[in-house]
Amino acid sequence: MISKNKIKYIQSLALKKKRKEENAFLAEGPKIVTDLLENFVCRTLVATEEWLKRHPHIQLSPKLLEIIPVNHDELSRASLLKTPQEVLAVFSTSSSTFDNKLIEQSLCLALDGIQDPGNLGTILRIADWFGIEHVLCSADTVDVYNPKVVQATMGAIARVQVHYCDLHKVIKDIQSKGIPTYGTFLNGKNIYEQSLSSNGLIVMGNEGNGISPVIGNLIDQRLLIPNYPSGRKTGDSLNVAIATAVICAEFRRRAM
Amino acid sequence: MISKNKIKYIQSLALKKKRKEENAFLAEGPKIVTDLLENFVCRTLVATEEWLKRHPHIQLSPKLLEIIPVNHDELSRASLLKTPQEVLAVFSTSSSTFDNKLIEQSLCLALDGIQDPGNLGTILRIADWFGIEHVLCSADTVDVYNPKVVQATMGAIARVQVHYCDLHKVIKDIQSKGIPTYGTFLNGKNIYEQSLSSNGLIVMGNEGNGISPVIGNLIDQRLLIPNYPSGRKTGDSLNVAIATAVICAEFRRRAM
Repeated sequence: MISKNKIKYIQSLALKKKRKEENAFLAEGPKIVTDLLENFVCRTLVATEEWLKRHPHIQLSPKLLEIIPVNHDELSRASLLKTPQEVLAVFSTSSSTFDNKLIEQSLCLALDGIQDPGNLGTILRIADWFGIEHVLCSADTVDVYNPKVVQATMGAIARVQVHYCDLHKVIKDIQSKGIPTYGTFLNGKNIYEQSLSSNGLIVMGNEGNGISPVIGNLIDQRLLIPNYPSGRKTGDSLNVAIATAVICAEFRRRAM
Repeated sequence: MISKNKIKYIQSLALKKKRKEENAFLAEGPKIVTDLLENFVCRTLVATEEWLKRHPHIQLSPKLLEIIPVNHDELSRASLLKTPQEVLAVFSTSSSTFDNKLIEQSLCLALDGIQDPGNLGTILRIADWFGIEHVLCSADTVDVYNPKVVQATMGAIARVQVHYCDLHKVIKDIQSKGIPTYGTFLNGKNIYEQSLSSNGLIVMGNEGNGISPVIGNLIDQRLLIPNYPSGRKTGDSLNVAIATAVICAEFRRRAM
């Protein structure tokens, strides 16, 4: 049995303002919820009684504060999804700090103004696959705790750390230490002919406008994913998540 | 001025049954519509008067049968988009035939049960970028003329040819001629350690279930996109469009 107030609270987390106030976010579906339970504090888990019976070990999770068993009708009323998925949960947001030294020691991604929740979620899933543990986001990038982003990560949000920051400042700082910065540009150099390091920052830009000029001017390695046959007239560009995947795959291939 | 019947007709093209009956489909937005005008017969183009004034050359297009100038309100009523984009158009579907020889001569993609319109659209955009001119689809793959697919291609649908067919039959036939077939499998072999040809068929599978067993059993080159560090526990898999991009990029890198 779930109260009307609890349903109202859960649904209010669709709003960024409310998520900020509460330092909380919503995740739905068995895969994402169980992935998140490993690393995030779960304030409330709402699940059908059938699902809870099939997952008795859930109750042993040390980071789980409250369980509310519901029927399908109650779950539907709490869910933001068209097709509710047996379980949803409210988690505390994490407030990890970021040290630029991490870019010196490993390969990191920076997102400059990504707007589409599906793109951000997909990019985190790519980062997860390719072992990129930290993703920096400009302040105008979509909120990682937006429910659509959370769903699109398919659970990767449990493993990849996302930090909102002043990208300009970070890049200035790491460049003063000689750490390489990479970005894709339609007038960049063929990525397959460039040397790629196993640390540094790969910057990906906004869906419509690419990397902003103020950031773009700082980047020292301007890369291009060549089309085929090279130089042939095609569509204007690849989707940003697609480009991120091809670039991350190539960096990791070199490091193998 | 656009008639109520015309609006009803345009909106009916959201339905696959209607598209089949009419051999027609809907595309919206200046980029996609102008791309399509190069290769497809346009039965009706509906655009704001402002847009038509700014694009006088449109009227010279030999494949354009009818132009209906409208105001913003009329456009909104005809459009399937939340944010209508100045122009939309009804095109005749193309009925090109496919010859398996094309797989002998070039690299082609085959999609086995792709369900999500956004994924199919994105895959066609990838094919366009990497110069893959023909994409074969199993009968249970989402309809390429679904308006959501058309929008997601960002115009690539104007250049990449899509053929619905019996994949099993095609693969049997090309294998009898010694043409290689590739697919991705979680237990496949590291793609970076395999030889890749510049012709043949790359098969990509359904979002949830991957390549169907009946097709999977036929594939002779089983590939894996390695995660990083290799073998590390991550999410279950990459999204199918993301995997398609990484694979196509690698095939084309080898052919450079």
